[in-house]
Amino acid sequence: MTLFLTRDIMSASNDRTLKGTIMNHNFEQDIYLDKKLATLENSDYYPFHMPGHKRQSIDFPNPYKIDITEIDSFDNLHHAEGILQEAQKRASDLYHTKETFYLINGSTCGILSAISAALPRGGTLLMGRNCHKAAYHAAFLRQLKTIYLMPAMTDFGIMGSIRPQDIADALEKNPDIHGVFLTSPTYDGVVSDIRTIAEIVHAHNLPLIVDEAHGAHFRFAEEFPISALECGADIVIHSVHKTLPCFTQTALLHVNSDRVPLNSIKSFLGIYETSSPSYLLMASIEQGLRTMAEQGAELMGNFTRLLTDFYTQGKKLKHLSVFTSDFCNQNTCFDWDFSKILISTENTNLNGQKLYDILREKYHIQLEMASGHYVTALTSVMDTAEGFERLIEALLEIDRDIDCNSNGKTSSENAVLTCQELYRIPLQKLTLNDAIEKAYDTILLKDAAGCISREYIYLYPPGIPLITPGEIITTELIENIALCKMQGLSVEGLADMQGEKIQVVRD
Amino acid sequence: MTLFLTRDIMSASNDRTLKGTIMNHNFEQDIYLDKKLATLENSDYYPFHMPGHKRQSIDFPNPYKIDITEIDSFDNLHHAEGILQEAQKRASDLYHTKETFYLINGSTCGILSAISAALPRGGTLLMGRNCHKAAYHAAFLRQLKTIYLMPAMTDFGIMGSIRPQDIADALEKNPDIHGVFLTSPTYDGVVSDIRTIAEIVHAHNLPLIVDEAHGAHFRFAEEFPISALECGADIVIHSVHKTLPCFTQTALLHVNSDRVPLNSIKSFLGIYETSSPSYLLMASIEQGLRTMAEQGAELMGNFTRLLTDFYTQGKKLKHLSVFTSDFCNQNTCFDWDFSKILISTENTNLNGQKLYDILREKYHIQLEMASGHYVTALTSVMDTAEGFERLIEALLEIDRDIDCNSNGKTSSENAVLTCQELYRIPLQKLTLNDAIEKAYDTILLKDAAGCISREYIYLYPPGIPLITPGEIITTELIENIALCKMQGLSVEGLADMQGEKIQVVRD
Repeated sequence: MTLFLTRDIMSASNDRTLKGTIMNHNFEQDIYLDKKLATLENSDYYPFHMPGHKRQSIDFPNPYKIDITEIDSFDNLHHAEGILQEAQKRASDLYHTKETFYLINGSTCGILSAISAALPRGGTLLMGRNCHKAAYHAAFLRQLKTIYLMPAMTDFGIMGSIRPQDIADALEKNPDIHGVFLTSPTYDGVVSDIRTIAEIVHAHNLPLIVDEAHGAHFRFAEEFPISALECGADIVIHSVHKTLPCFTQTALLHVNSDRVPLNSIKSFLGIYETSSPSYLLMASIEQGLRTMAEQGAELMGNFTRLLTDFYTQGKKLKHLSVFTSDFCNQNTCFDWDFSKILISTENTNLNGQKLYDILREKYHIQLEMASGHYVTALTSVMDTAEGFERLIEALLEIDRDIDCNSNGKTSSENAVLTCQELYRIPLQKLTLNDAIEKAYDTILLKDAAGCISREYIYLYPPGIPLITPGEIITTELIENIALCKMQGLSVEGLADMQGEKIQVVRD
Repeated sequence: MTLFLTRDIMSASNDRTLKGTIMNHNFEQDIYLDKKLATLENSDYYPFHMPGHKRQSIDFPNPYKIDITEIDSFDNLHHAEGILQEAQKRASDLYHTKETFYLINGSTCGILSAISAALPRGGTLLMGRNCHKAAYHAAFLRQLKTIYLMPAMTDFGIMGSIRPQDIADALEKNPDIHGVFLTSPTYDGVVSDIRTIAEIVHAHNLPLIVDEAHGAHFRFAEEFPISALECGADIVIHSVHKTLPCFTQTALLHVNSDRVPLNSIKSFLGIYETSSPSYLLMASIEQGLRTMAEQGAELMGNFTRLLTDFYTQGKKLKHLSVFTSDFCNQNTCFDWDFSKILISTENTNLNGQKLYDILREKYHIQLEMASGHYVTALTSVMDTAEGFERLIEALLEIDRDIDCNSNGKTSSENAVLTCQELYRIPLQKLTLNDAIEKAYDTILLKDAAGCISREYIYLYPPGIPLITPGEIITTELIENIALCKMQGLSVEGLADMQGEKIQVVRD
């Protein structure tokens, strides 16, 4: 079962544009998930999105033939003493950690377990406001008090890094903090100064947990940011499916110090993960990590060359602009992962969604995400030269068209997305748990000023909450949300799908 | 991607007996999980264990080619509005439920979500003492008070069903109970009288949650017990990987009434399941359920014929005995799933482990489980006539050998396993959460009489706790545990692998 790198560029299809066109296959007939997925085998859509294996033809047996339970000689993930213990030891050696755990419920269960194990029930968590929802869920389950850190805003209009000074200030101001949780890199690839942050957190003798879900590849080439593991974080979580060639839903939890008891981490993994772990998912972790161990240098060398060529070519763009580390500066964006390709539509007559749609519909290139004023293409060691060529050629062609008909209009959404006011953290009256567990009323959002929210509201992207349960709804927030909706941004989180009603804590 | 039923009987291998023997393949060379799993493709071991697809050659694409994230037109499990909503609707129609959810973190996340949604934080849960550990974990996470129901003991020496009268008595005695959680069928196939129990629980206007993980097949043939869904349970959880042809780690959560708010169930599923659900696992649920929808009657008809033939042949056994519904009676075993084949070694010179080993080593038949005085073979619609023939012929041959050298000795473990005293529930001083969150000391078990345990202790099998966190350790319990160890039973649960030390709550 060795990794065979094909050069095909087949990939994710999309039925909005492929109605009945894939190999004369009537896509609409595929009402069954398994059958519709099978059509992807013969699609020509290129995936600049997760998972990191990019749907290459990696050798793997018929899954039904090897999908087993814990029979003799195949060990038990929750009490690993055999081949699974050895496999996790290999992962630990690869990342130079104290201990590493395979996760088969995604980084989600790693985040839940790390926070649950690191803080006492009812403790206080200092966390980035831009953290994955699992961090908020852990705070709810464990009844934690939460203190938030808002990332800086970059000139490029994306959320930047968390400032070490903000953490130092928060720890000084709140002596009751029990642990710190940060996301680095972000979905956009923005990396915070984890080394300095770790020194500050450890000076208070507290544990630092870093959600490095999007950075599992950092350790394999110098051209990328330094991993939080090398920077001294106590626990680091990696989604190996995001940037490495592993199945979706696979991840790793790395333990780097003694600040959080191993037994406690194991106990919570045993709570948040199924008692019937999939050997298919575990086999994919083993296979993907072995590929990186054996061919990582070569693969990453090739990968960085392809990326460098892409960014060189990107300089030719006259109207669209590609985010580069030139935009980074100590204050707003400490470091950045250039495998996340961000293409700005600012000062063009396009917005992110329009560029995303053109690439998908005209060029059969499926990107990861469209924001108001930029799009994101996620790349990995499994991307091909042909894939990068298709992307840059498509962008240059689109850029030329803009040249003909651009009116230089700025994507108006940008004004909102970069608006610091939008993300000013509301006053917190109750903890997440106290707000969610209390009796509530469902009222019109426009009438909710002064009430305590029982729900989250956020724009997706970027997915950072505008308000969380327990915080007070302000008139300004209500106005900003109306503005966002007017501009066609996706306001999410409310149980009411129309987004007109909100659950508020009953007085 | 239709189901192709092969007649091959290839299956799970075992390297203790296959050192270097599978197709001249040196098994010991397979230090990598993926490579070792690949050898199962060419093994002649027959799987009388989970998963229910029995590793048949069911058609499935190369998983890397169809493993995607939530790209356009493939929906989002946590906000299903497209093909995943339709797939879950098909599952709901198949089981005639109000709503059904795909689970990709096993029945574990279904149990956690159901209990979390059905009871308020700090509420009181009436639960079977023989429930899956996820029920205990949910009680810990949600700080529930727990009141336990001990199942009856059958003449066969296995745990029986939960008595409706015990539930009625508990509900009368404890008016503060917020919900009831039971496991039916058990790992041994024992079914409780869910219809009568549901009436009792609903008379108190409380929700009944049934872990029917081992009974996902009941609905497809009259020869099997009536599903808890038909008996009026409010929430039912099915492990489709256990008895249906689906991948390990897949399950369903069925909602049958309005007693537990759907939004609350959805919220908790969003907490306990990864935000990156595997499309491979979801595709397998779709494929397995469609197989049952389209071919269920035929498959179950063939399956019940094979089972009936097996039990008829089983009557020829002179020393070994096969559990049948004849052993059932209203008081101890309300009903029973005859797809779980239990073979007793009582009154033979074998114990369960020895029979299990002989079947594996001499006959290359891998069973699910060995207990002190019996073994368990799990069967499904994917089992073949050849498989059943191999099993009965092996048993008849072993039985003849016993004939020659039996000394009529009773498996001594049986004395312990059937010992009601062993499972008398200790006095509960603290809730699970209060005991686990408190400071603790680790002391010798032999000196722990009178202390409050912070740990679980159980025999595996059957896995029912002898004591749980918050309960008082008695001299009798310490003596019983010593006795169990003397008799070679597997005493598990303690952090101390030697089982000599136990964590007790500090005074």
